[in-house]
Amino acid sequence: MDLPPSPLARPFPDMPAIAGVTLRAARARYKEWERADLTYVELVEGTGVAGVFTQSLCASSEVELGREQVKRGAARALVVNAGNANAFTGYRGREAVEAIQRQTADHIGCAPEDVFVSSTGVIGVPLPKDRARDGIVAAFAADEATWEQAAHAIWTTDTFAKGAHTCAMIGGTKVNLCGIIKGSGMIAPDMATMLGYVFTDAAIEPAFLQELLSRANAGTFNCITVDGDTSTSDTVLVFATGQTDAPRIKDWESPGADAFAAALTDICRQLAQLVVRDGEGASKFIQIRVSGAVNDDSARRVGLAIANSPLVKTAIAGEDANWGRVVMAIGKAGEPADRDKLGIAFGGVWTARDGLPVEDYDETPIAEHLKGEEIDLAVELGVGIGRATVWTCDLTHGYISINADYRS
Amino acid sequence: MDLPPSPLARPFPDMPAIAGVTLRAARARYKEWERADLTYVELVEGTGVAGVFTQSLCASSEVELGREQVKRGAARALVVNAGNANAFTGYRGREAVEAIQRQTADHIGCAPEDVFVSSTGVIGVPLPKDRARDGIVAAFAADEATWEQAAHAIWTTDTFAKGAHTCAMIGGTKVNLCGIIKGSGMIAPDMATMLGYVFTDAAIEPAFLQELLSRANAGTFNCITVDGDTSTSDTVLVFATGQTDAPRIKDWESPGADAFAAALTDICRQLAQLVVRDGEGASKFIQIRVSGAVNDDSARRVGLAIANSPLVKTAIAGEDANWGRVVMAIGKAGEPADRDKLGIAFGGVWTARDGLPVEDYDETPIAEHLKGEEIDLAVELGVGIGRATVWTCDLTHGYISINADYRS
Repeated sequence: MDLPPSPLARPFPDMPAIAGVTLRAARARYKEWERADLTYVELVEGTGVAGVFTQSLCASSEVELGREQVKRGAARALVVNAGNANAFTGYRGREAVEAIQRQTADHIGCAPEDVFVSSTGVIGVPLPKDRARDGIVAAFAADEATWEQAAHAIWTTDTFAKGAHTCAMIGGTKVNLCGIIKGSGMIAPDMATMLGYVFTDAAIEPAFLQELLSRANAGTFNCITVDGDTSTSDTVLVFATGQTDAPRIKDWESPGADAFAAALTDICRQLAQLVVRDGEGASKFIQIRVSGAVNDDSARRVGLAIANSPLVKTAIAGEDANWGRVVMAIGKAGEPADRDKLGIAFGGVWTARDGLPVEDYDETPIAEHLKGEEIDLAVELGVGIGRATVWTCDLTHGYISINADYRS
Repeated sequence: MDLPPSPLARPFPDMPAIAGVTLRAARARYKEWERADLTYVELVEGTGVAGVFTQSLCASSEVELGREQVKRGAARALVVNAGNANAFTGYRGREAVEAIQRQTADHIGCAPEDVFVSSTGVIGVPLPKDRARDGIVAAFAADEATWEQAAHAIWTTDTFAKGAHTCAMIGGTKVNLCGIIKGSGMIAPDMATMLGYVFTDAAIEPAFLQELLSRANAGTFNCITVDGDTSTSDTVLVFATGQTDAPRIKDWESPGADAFAAALTDICRQLAQLVVRDGEGASKFIQIRVSGAVNDDSARRVGLAIANSPLVKTAIAGEDANWGRVVMAIGKAGEPADRDKLGIAFGGVWTARDGLPVEDYDETPIAEHLKGEEIDLAVELGVGIGRATVWTCDLTHGYISINADYRS
């Protein structure tokens, strides 16, 4: 099915080219559709790489191989297949990935381990090797693609193309970071895996790049949820081509390390929020700010318990400031909280404080706030100084329609 | 709102009286409605009691007091308020409960701690003491109520009255167990807390009764889920009046202990399944049988991860044997499983085995099975002999309508 763009969609931004990164797309016809569904990114020699992957114990071969590949720290190409997740396909799935790696490595003249592969789409059907092979040959010969074209080619049931750009100054030289991402549920194995790719012309030591990505991931991709479901294939990769005059960043002592770390977190947050904005059936973007937890990790768990509660999500869909459901979600999180110090605010207006409903608070600004598309929910737990912010969307009839009314 | 009975509803069973148990109901008018909303159960002197309560850290005063009361092991009365959960109401909520205990204790001539109180309904509003007081006076003077009338009086947004009956032989004497329960979401704080009460004329030492209830609870109430949300007030109490000639059961060595334990588990399972059958928006009752886990507890966690997955629940609502979503849910459970030995069966037909889709399986019986109201999903994890069965319902437009389209 083709869905209209999410009401929370954002226009695709202007994004500069990244030296050392060449984008191409082709039709492998993984499904019966008329669109590019194979994306090929060639990376200049010397490109460093870091990655984070799904925690699923049923991860795809692409993820299993990717986890090993990032330890080497070097990348020369990325191939993304849309329409087939190649998950739960056993040895035949793995063979399909290795064939793509060999074919691409032969073309470039690199090691197969320098070729990263991602796949998203239907589960349980081995990726057809012949279509992949022909698609890659077509991609080698294709014109260069724009960022927006690449963002289109990697999507499955997304409703808008998602990209982000930022920059940082390193030793007086400007470096760029450009990213694309796809995903519209936290996952549906046959449709909505999250795949994100960030490219930068900065030079970053791979081990340090991994440290930076893991830190950025904790406060961005790990703080979003659409439906609490976790893909077998979620992947975020960062490629650093080192094609500017900026000095190489090796560790926190390197000039510009802080600036680059901040820029990487910024672009990861932008991309993560775009996935929530394309959440299946979403009509409202919800920011949940938790404070007063025993530590930041505890705050994040409370935030995700609230964000994953179907009763909280449906209440917000119904524009109902139902803080009773928020209390319930806090209670079920199992994290330390002082019931008699709890506070809950919608749009900056406290409806409950010190464990009691605020009497005679003005409902007008809250009702106005809930009618909007951007919802802010603040929760104070009253036991410490830990804090976290998580992002989610509401739960609507649209989610049910997308996932129940249409057969896979 | 008044909803039509769930399509999965069951008729109220014939249930015998339990000697030592007197049911009455009255109108306390906790909401603007014309129905009994205060249930008063008087219990003969010598009645033993055991209970299990919500794990929520934001539990109501009723739950906090109840946890202490069951340690004493003695009960003379139960008062259930419907329409007001009295949760998140601080000291005023606690005072309301204590007033009910004193009033009832004075009437019976017992200790206030022998009076158990439960409340369900809107959160954040202290239970009105005057309405409770007048309602209790009316209940003292009311005619005796039937089990079905009591099951009606404790409900909030339930769509059918839920009761169950079973019996056991103890030392050649038959004892009865009768139970009533309310709940239609695993919880919504303003509507759907689960409250269950079992009454038996058997004589059971309270400490052993608690052990039996905790065991029964693990495989019954703790194995159901509607929406994964946990109430601030969930409560199950068992009262044993000891009004037959059957010998007193003190421990596992007592004659009839095994029989009574089996009967208690049976009635708890019946009651738990009735809550799922009244799940908000439910159109299908789903049984998930997990085998091959490292242990039973791990199997239960995998089962609940599947049962709580909105993508699995919407797939079944859409009558789609989407085993890819089941694989996803297994993966996110974080429990040991062998991806290459996984098996998944709908209605007894394997769609995946040994980590691979079954080729050319017959889809006809699966499609027929999914059209029905009773869905059986079997999952083999391939790493051990642990097993568990959990029960849930599907996720439909009805759930969204109940929780988002109507304002609280």
